[in-house]
Amino acid sequence: MLPEILDLSSVRAAYAQGLTPLELVEEVIVRCEAADDPAIFITRTPDDELRNAARELVARAPQPNSLPLWGIPFAVKDNIDVAGLPTTAACPAYEYRPEADATLIARLKAAGALVIGKTNLDQFATGLNGTRSPYGAPRSVFDKAYVSGGSSSGSAVAVASGLATFALGTDTAGSGRVPASFNNLVGIKPTPGLVPNTGVIPACRSVDVVTVFAGTVGDGIAVRKVMEGYDAGDPFSREAEPCTLPASGLRIGVLDGAEREFYGNKAYEALYDAAIERAKSLGATIVPFDYAPFREAAELLYNGPWVAERLAAVKDFIATNADDFDPTVRTIIEGARRYDAVAAFEGRYKLESLRQKTKVEWNKVDMLMLPTSPTTYTVEDMLADPIAKNGHFGRYTNFVNLFGYAAIAIPAGFDIAGHLPFGVTLIGPAFADEALASFADRMHRDVAAGMGKDRLAALPEASRVVEPDDGMIPIMVVGAHLTGMPLNHELTGSGGRLVRICRTSNDYRLFVLPDTTPPKPGLIHEPDYEAAGLEVEVWALPPDAFGRFVANIPAPLGIGKVTLDDGSSVSGFLCEAYAIAGAQEITALGGWRSYIRSLSV
Amino acid sequence: MLPEILDLSSVRAAYAQGLTPLELVEEVIVRCEAADDPAIFITRTPDDELRNAARELVARAPQPNSLPLWGIPFAVKDNIDVAGLPTTAACPAYEYRPEADATLIARLKAAGALVIGKTNLDQFATGLNGTRSPYGAPRSVFDKAYVSGGSSSGSAVAVASGLATFALGTDTAGSGRVPASFNNLVGIKPTPGLVPNTGVIPACRSVDVVTVFAGTVGDGIAVRKVMEGYDAGDPFSREAEPCTLPASGLRIGVLDGAEREFYGNKAYEALYDAAIERAKSLGATIVPFDYAPFREAAELLYNGPWVAERLAAVKDFIATNADDFDPTVRTIIEGARRYDAVAAFEGRYKLESLRQKTKVEWNKVDMLMLPTSPTTYTVEDMLADPIAKNGHFGRYTNFVNLFGYAAIAIPAGFDIAGHLPFGVTLIGPAFADEALASFADRMHRDVAAGMGKDRLAALPEASRVVEPDDGMIPIMVVGAHLTGMPLNHELTGSGGRLVRICRTSNDYRLFVLPDTTPPKPGLIHEPDYEAAGLEVEVWALPPDAFGRFVANIPAPLGIGKVTLDDGSSVSGFLCEAYAIAGAQEITALGGWRSYIRSLSV
Repeated sequence: MLPEILDLSSVRAAYAQGLTPLELVEEVIVRCEAADDPAIFITRTPDDELRNAARELVARAPQPNSLPLWGIPFAVKDNIDVAGLPTTAACPAYEYRPEADATLIARLKAAGALVIGKTNLDQFATGLNGTRSPYGAPRSVFDKAYVSGGSSSGSAVAVASGLATFALGTDTAGSGRVPASFNNLVGIKPTPGLVPNTGVIPACRSVDVVTVFAGTVGDGIAVRKVMEGYDAGDPFSREAEPCTLPASGLRIGVLDGAEREFYGNKAYEALYDAAIERAKSLGATIVPFDYAPFREAAELLYNGPWVAERLAAVKDFIATNADDFDPTVRTIIEGARRYDAVAAFEGRYKLESLRQKTKVEWNKVDMLMLPTSPTTYTVEDMLADPIAKNGHFGRYTNFVNLFGYAAIAIPAGFDIAGHLPFGVTLIGPAFADEALASFADRMHRDVAAGMGKDRLAALPEASRVVEPDDGMIPIMVVGAHLTGMPLNHELTGSGGRLVRICRTSNDYRLFVLPDTTPPKPGLIHEPDYEAAGLEVEVWALPPDAFGRFVANIPAPLGIGKVTLDDGSSVSGFLCEAYAIAGAQEITALGGWRSYIRSLSV
Repeated sequence: MLPEILDLSSVRAAYAQGLTPLELVEEVIVRCEAADDPAIFITRTPDDELRNAARELVARAPQPNSLPLWGIPFAVKDNIDVAGLPTTAACPAYEYRPEADATLIARLKAAGALVIGKTNLDQFATGLNGTRSPYGAPRSVFDKAYVSGGSSSGSAVAVASGLATFALGTDTAGSGRVPASFNNLVGIKPTPGLVPNTGVIPACRSVDVVTVFAGTVGDGIAVRKVMEGYDAGDPFSREAEPCTLPASGLRIGVLDGAEREFYGNKAYEALYDAAIERAKSLGATIVPFDYAPFREAAELLYNGPWVAERLAAVKDFIATNADDFDPTVRTIIEGARRYDAVAAFEGRYKLESLRQKTKVEWNKVDMLMLPTSPTTYTVEDMLADPIAKNGHFGRYTNFVNLFGYAAIAIPAGFDIAGHLPFGVTLIGPAFADEALASFADRMHRDVAAGMGKDRLAALPEASRVVEPDDGMIPIMVVGAHLTGMPLNHELTGSGGRLVRICRTSNDYRLFVLPDTTPPKPGLIHEPDYEAAGLEVEVWALPPDAFGRFVANIPAPLGIGKVTLDDGSSVSGFLCEAYAIAGAQEITALGGWRSYIRSLSV
């Protein structure tokens, strides 16, 4: 009844067909016991507690799928508090038992989701590779010799192995994206501040973001929507601001020239080029851009004063327990002691200066598409050179949270041997989270690489991301505002776009208004009239532009509702009846354009 | 021909009447020579250079007032670069001769303004009192025993003494506001990032703002508009974002209870209360709010890691020239050495946490009105206790730039003895610069305290700030959207406000539309009809809300233009003619409200 990958649509469908949450958790328990990677979890929810949670859900909300995440099993990175389970941040000496859920966990539980356990991570979320944990190194689900990616290592492997529908990561440098890439998953990396961090152990508190690993973009977005929303308890929590991207003609920035760095991984470079070709085939305009200012910002995160945030997060603990740290993590965190407050502010000046340089690049593009990680390594290779090789993974991820962007990591196929997966990340401005999702989903579906370890899984239709409502208001024009007519610039000049050319229903009449400059027609609805309809155009305008447009229309014209030939109704130009007394009727010509043409004959 | 205070309107009027820029600079030279405060300037523009600048202006733009600041004399705080004049930051050993103008100076010169000299300041802009300079302490223009305020001390005294039309300050803690208050001037403190700091010596680079001292709000705004605009060379430069405040029903937050601190200055407290009464008399709603989170943020600026920005700005120079510093300034700047990068980030966490707390207060108010400085001191008293007494001046100013707000300091009368001036500051959210200005100007005119040292000067009408166009779109409603009617919530719920209750012109007819829920009328224009007009309401909506409102109106209703009884035309509800066939006419009842009332009789 349940597929190998427990994607949201499949679990919901199973529930709709009679599966119970208790049956689901029994299946999850069996799968966890059988999992072939012993390093995924730090703490599993005790079986009986998980069964009880399923029973309590059914008692609270008996109807299947009656909550947004009704009975959906998920795993939680072990730097996020879940009441009743220990939090370790992958440092056993640091362990504590939180009394309260992190705000976002409370929201997920209220929505019906079930915590199956706390997952392994690079200690204190310091790393992008997954080997920096005393609880062992989770492995890529495709080759046990290879790293899982980190720091949210266990979370990614849990989803890719079919143990949970989704799992939570945290992402400072790229920890919610790199493991997605190495395990053929989607990684939703929200705009910083959108999901509150209350109850999350900080890595770099000013730039930490809770993320979602899921099988599809739609699944991840559904989870993010439950988690997001302002929380005054988090100093960096923010209300979302509107941000849309063009619904068509998307300009996508891609790496160019010397900024293309794959550390010798030709297979990944070829997969990046293939992703660019697919983006093009989906209608995007590809724009090579200068990655240099983004790269310089990326370098600041570990080679700059931001590491002091990692020290700030553990300063009391490290003072007494330095020997309890993973040696690499300790080296990185203690390296922060060399930065004074002057260096901290100078780091900010540098970042803001780079932000100004990125504005030039953003003027060229709507979103960026970058390799999530330009290469991957075996656990052995990683351990031999842990800081430099980890840095390779972050080359195209480290800058994103420093600049406050939204990002979605998506699978982008497998290397030539069909061996290891590659991923790309779509990056947009702050609060472009919704706007990125539909194109990300189209790209993901187009590559047909399955979900997680099931390379043949079909992405369910039910999880398809619908184009976001761009909030534009359709308006039907019939005369001087038609394409090529004298007032068409009022539409094009205020962000308008042509939606379609069509006809009104048959019961409209068109008249030439006397004494108008430029010449304008008047459209009148007369329910029992019978003609052939009139040629019109439907445009779309942003609401404020539409408002100002309407406010500027002179009498006797105005905006009412007009019925089109497909029976739909749309805002459009109508004329007050008094004004057509004695006016020339041109209904028989079929439209204003034919009338104008007739004048020049 | 020229008044004692060289306000912008008066100088423009003199030019219009034939005064030449050369004549004006001769007058300025005479006034500067005669000035009774020797500490105003660090460097005056050499007389012949000033004369040459006037001649060059006339050669470039012969027509009087043909540039925004044609022939307007201004003084520049000596931490802002003017090509050809030395920059000292009030530290002789630091002196250098910049080759280029600061960006904002170049913009002012291009607009026709003439630099008359570089003014004294608290060294490296570190102070709010004006005594921390080896070039002497400028004094209040009202009593030479008293401080001028700082750090922009010389700039304020220059304008208040009638030596310049405006002068530039810089403001980190309050340096562009406190000296305005002590010298009966307006201090325009733009939103951080609006005016570029390229070519300005930093104090705290992340929060420094260039300000304007002027005789009227209108003058200061005119200058700010010339200076503002994005400059990629300044890491903190930003594009302005739209920010409006309500055109009526303004809610103004004022100090309450234990947060009212005037350090024993009863006269100033009484003047603050008088300002509150005047705000009320001008139509504002007074809202006591909790100042605590703002005060805590204010304390961070000097008693927190932000002082490290001051050290960052001079770190190379202080390493070799520590003995060349003013002792108090040196103590403050060297105090920054105790902060490490952890403390810098922890300061930011604290600030962002306080910002969340201020949101609760901002939900209650549109702007704040605070004492600019709660008290003042003699130079002697200040020098006896230079750090604590300086701190008193910043009690209500220090938080403003940390939170990124806009502020305008305005005169608010003289103490009982008619001796020393007091000022209040209006503070609004980021980019409320325009929105604050009109109420600030009304408050300033209402207090009738003159300009600068001329307590009897009348504020010229020509500098009156007109209400900003709030961009709202008027819409006439005639039926179910009237106040108290079932659909009125569609207006009130989307930011609408009632503008007026009036009647249509005499040639409209009103019908009861059959089968509408809730019941609705249809308004029809019939040019030759003669009735008594119909009772309607005009509301105003933000453009986007207006757009969505129009898009949701069902047929047969729509929005056209309706003529009112005063002959004006406004967007409003009309009805398609076909829909009134057979409908009951209620024109004789005079409006929808009378019809509804008639139903219940």
